[in-house]
Amino acid sequence: MDKVGHWSELAAQLAVDSIRSSTAAGSGHPTSSLSAAHLLAVLWSDHLRTDIANPTSLANDRFVLSKGHASPLMFSVLKAVGAITDEQLLSFRKMDSPVQGHPVPLPDMPWVDVATGSLGQGLPIALGMALAMRMDQIPARAWCLMGDSEAAEGSVWEAMANASHHEVDNLIAIVDVNRLGQRGPTMLGWDLETYAARARAFGWYAIEVDGHDVSAIDGAFVEAEHAGRPVLVIARTEKGHGVSFLVDAEGWHGKALSDEEAERAIAELGGERDLRISPPKPEAAVAPPRNGAEVELPEYVEGIATRKAFGETLAALAVRPDLVAIDAEVSNSTYTEDLQKVAPERFVEGYIAEQNMVGMAVGMQVLGKVAFAATFAAFLTRAYDFIRMAAIGRANLRLSGSHAGVSIGEDGPSQMALEDLAMMRAVYGSTVLYPCDGNSTAKLVAQMADLPGISYIRTTREKTPLLHGSHTPFPIGGSVVVRSSGGDRVTLVGAGITVHESVTAADLLAAEGIAVRVVDCYSIKPIDVATLRAALSETQLLVTVEDHWLEGGLGDAVLAALASEDDLSGRVVKIGIAEMPGSGTPEELRDWAGISAARIAERVRELLG
Amino acid sequence: MDKVGHWSELAAQLAVDSIRSSTAAGSGHPTSSLSAAHLLAVLWSDHLRTDIANPTSLANDRFVLSKGHASPLMFSVLKAVGAITDEQLLSFRKMDSPVQGHPVPLPDMPWVDVATGSLGQGLPIALGMALAMRMDQIPARAWCLMGDSEAAEGSVWEAMANASHHEVDNLIAIVDVNRLGQRGPTMLGWDLETYAARARAFGWYAIEVDGHDVSAIDGAFVEAEHAGRPVLVIARTEKGHGVSFLVDAEGWHGKALSDEEAERAIAELGGERDLRISPPKPEAAVAPPRNGAEVELPEYVEGIATRKAFGETLAALAVRPDLVAIDAEVSNSTYTEDLQKVAPERFVEGYIAEQNMVGMAVGMQVLGKVAFAATFAAFLTRAYDFIRMAAIGRANLRLSGSHAGVSIGEDGPSQMALEDLAMMRAVYGSTVLYPCDGNSTAKLVAQMADLPGISYIRTTREKTPLLHGSHTPFPIGGSVVVRSSGGDRVTLVGAGITVHESVTAADLLAAEGIAVRVVDCYSIKPIDVATLRAALSETQLLVTVEDHWLEGGLGDAVLAALASEDDLSGRVVKIGIAEMPGSGTPEELRDWAGISAARIAERVRELLG
Repeated sequence: MDKVGHWSELAAQLAVDSIRSSTAAGSGHPTSSLSAAHLLAVLWSDHLRTDIANPTSLANDRFVLSKGHASPLMFSVLKAVGAITDEQLLSFRKMDSPVQGHPVPLPDMPWVDVATGSLGQGLPIALGMALAMRMDQIPARAWCLMGDSEAAEGSVWEAMANASHHEVDNLIAIVDVNRLGQRGPTMLGWDLETYAARARAFGWYAIEVDGHDVSAIDGAFVEAEHAGRPVLVIARTEKGHGVSFLVDAEGWHGKALSDEEAERAIAELGGERDLRISPPKPEAAVAPPRNGAEVELPEYVEGIATRKAFGETLAALAVRPDLVAIDAEVSNSTYTEDLQKVAPERFVEGYIAEQNMVGMAVGMQVLGKVAFAATFAAFLTRAYDFIRMAAIGRANLRLSGSHAGVSIGEDGPSQMALEDLAMMRAVYGSTVLYPCDGNSTAKLVAQMADLPGISYIRTTREKTPLLHGSHTPFPIGGSVVVRSSGGDRVTLVGAGITVHESVTAADLLAAEGIAVRVVDCYSIKPIDVATLRAALSETQLLVTVEDHWLEGGLGDAVLAALASEDDLSGRVVKIGIAEMPGSGTPEELRDWAGISAARIAERVRELLG
Repeated sequence: MDKVGHWSELAAQLAVDSIRSSTAAGSGHPTSSLSAAHLLAVLWSDHLRTDIANPTSLANDRFVLSKGHASPLMFSVLKAVGAITDEQLLSFRKMDSPVQGHPVPLPDMPWVDVATGSLGQGLPIALGMALAMRMDQIPARAWCLMGDSEAAEGSVWEAMANASHHEVDNLIAIVDVNRLGQRGPTMLGWDLETYAARARAFGWYAIEVDGHDVSAIDGAFVEAEHAGRPVLVIARTEKGHGVSFLVDAEGWHGKALSDEEAERAIAELGGERDLRISPPKPEAAVAPPRNGAEVELPEYVEGIATRKAFGETLAALAVRPDLVAIDAEVSNSTYTEDLQKVAPERFVEGYIAEQNMVGMAVGMQVLGKVAFAATFAAFLTRAYDFIRMAAIGRANLRLSGSHAGVSIGEDGPSQMALEDLAMMRAVYGSTVLYPCDGNSTAKLVAQMADLPGISYIRTTREKTPLLHGSHTPFPIGGSVVVRSSGGDRVTLVGAGITVHESVTAADLLAAEGIAVRVVDCYSIKPIDVATLRAALSETQLLVTVEDHWLEGGLGDAVLAALASEDDLSGRVVKIGIAEMPGSGTPEELRDWAGISAARIAERVRELLG
């Protein structure tokens, strides 16, 4: 069989298998799979250089199915390359199957690198992969298949702008222009010219192609591989292509065919086939070094802003060759610039595009990078969907959010993170840290570099006093009892800035004869249940103090910890931000909010009657 | 003085006042203000048609300062138009001043319509304003001043694509291309041509102009006003223009001048002035009707998916002429299509661009629209920064998120909202609702239409049984004790889908002689403290059951409520989603997660020992 015949037959097989799997599941997206069957038949047969037996090899090209709902097509390809069996294919969307409704990387699904299914995320991720390959001089490419509906997502254009700006030449995106979204036509329909004009204006090389003409597709991919720029292959396709009653028809989005419909459709497509393909082998790549010199963490002997300690610790960690930092154009605020100064080749300026920043970090960690992404904590809200999806994809992602709470002062509420702890706690498997001084920050950032999953460190804008020695350990899930005595009548639980206010409040109260325990709860998730339960049990009054909305942050985490193992008994009071702040000095705003030392002491006096 | 002289003098005054106010504050962004002083001098003198004495008039043109950090310039303009005094201007960034670090609409700052300061949000908001004006046939325009750095934000391109697609001709955006971001050059520098090419590819009319040539600016605005399309005025400017030691200089972002520097700068700018201007008057506009026929809510007598009940209630509310719905291309899933069917002129298809969707809703509510924005709840995470900012801007915003929790089944985790309750609880002044049946949904959606602030309703994908009669009231902040008896040994607290599982669990346990109280906690914020406290006090064991991560959702809300007024006493157990789900049927997944009736009953038996 010649190549054209092979590609066409394979495309028909992928279409048939997409129908078979979704009909077996009783749900899924066969029509969105059929539109891209020819594209993937040619790509996986002759262009994507990957070793199926060694899916984690750094030498492989990477493929990201950004239109994750076309999972039947993805899994049909994985069957054709011999990665999964037909039986596995037909377990699509069944309980406990790794062949899930949308692609998810799992131990038994190692050919999927990242979770997709929230549209517009594939391109930022693929860009991160392309950048990581370039950093390690790996002669591989990142390919990304997008749907046309997802071109409406701004994150796509964040990646478009960043890709050309960073001059990547190993990123090829394909947009499957099948004209139909979930509920009807897309904004641009089959106006390929406008897609091309947009891509070119964003600095990309654009190729228009008939997405069902396998020779033309092959030609487009060859052209793309030699463009020397990021490339968008714009393919005119038909949703439901190849089946008379599905083709270009509305009302078929996300619907599986009935058994009878499937039978008819498969007959139209020429019946079942069992072609097997072997993608081209990757070029040899030299694995980059993973171990560097021993890390010497900074040791502080005086106060420092924890955001600055974060940056200095990153710089210290730069002896690890796998360490990378990405910032959203505020590196002189988050202090990732400290890493940039010592390892400029491992710093990526992501500009003001937080979604793309997190997406790039996800892509980079696929290739083994220990990626820290940083911006103002308030603006990480912009990337919440990417963070959520990263957790689904079991990504190892390190996030740093500076400028926490009302303590930033004059800039006002738009720059104040007051919901970041709630947001980050509600991420699967996340670690949420909020240190109060330089030494604890250094220890925690160092641990983040080796933590699996999504970890987050919240840092404070202003300089804070040194509270801990440089030899104190700060295990994840721990806390430090900063002061305590046998006669403690109340426990103050703070994190970050409020630890200092709590210590001062304890001083004020001690002068009045009220003994106060103070806990530095630097690890908000996981949290130190034992210390908190003991404190409530021993003092019977526990007051949490946080520079965060009262919902979902430290106070709620402490309450959940206290309730987690046994009966509740005692009084727990949460102090935090209850009204909308404005501008003011940090001191004025903390006092206004009730989280200054004076206000904490006042509240404790009231509570003790 | 001729117009050119007037504009130039006014621009110098705005520059001087930007320096005076930021130096008085000791912080702020004078250089980012200076780059746009000529632009706003011409705009507010001769193009923005607004009645300063009547800032809420629907006839006014609207101005959105998307580059919110240029607040010194904004407030200097408000002084020049007589809206605020020089004394107020100099209270910039001071505690309790309405002249905040970034613009915020407040009772004493009615000339600011929306909060800005998180970049890339102004254009979606201005687009919403333009659409609302068109709906009401108001001959006004929405103007938006953007910075060049924020062109990196994808949300800008979401609005660009939507604006041309929706063919608005009353939206004029100005981009202040001063070449410098916070930490250095932007991606495009002074490459105005590329900005123009991008705008044109996105269907906009683009005009390049020297942003310090007042005649050219005036000409550009005249051209823009007659373009018949959305217009991007691309202005080449200098950061710190007019001051020798600031102009186009790095290292001056977000820094106030010292007193001495300010004195020198003001001298260079020709000293203080006190020009007053009156913007052109708006064209007369007929206020749209605000009251419609009486609303007849749907009354259900059998089960229905709450998402469908939401859509049908929206359709019933359509008799209110101010009601609008916006969707992110899933209207046949969220059922906003039910509103579209009865009032197509008040439905806006926002395509897959959740940030822009929420931004448009914020813009529309400025003009009095009661805007509901809907998508899958999981994808509202995409718009979290917009929601956060909407709360800062005291916007009235109604959000609906469908497809909650593992109960969506086969589509898998990418489509499952498991963090939305945590996210929405941590929004200032928010209302968070999660009804379990058709009748409660109808009552709650109707109340949302009149609620101030940010309200959110979470809906379930699958059909759920009818639990409540159509005459039961469902006050915000209330709950319904679905069953109880004197001998209750445990209270199950559910919301949405888990109410049904809890009721069935109670049936199972009742058959074993264990009396169980069940609470339908449909209002998660505010929450019914009294009912929950009574339940814990009377049953001593309270189990929360939620189809949501264990962090930040119903369980944490209940714990916070129990702790809020008095000592804690008793056992509280949270059941929710603790591991990452995959695909499966809704029933299989609820059982796997421990939130099925059988698993709830099992857990209760264990707890009762």
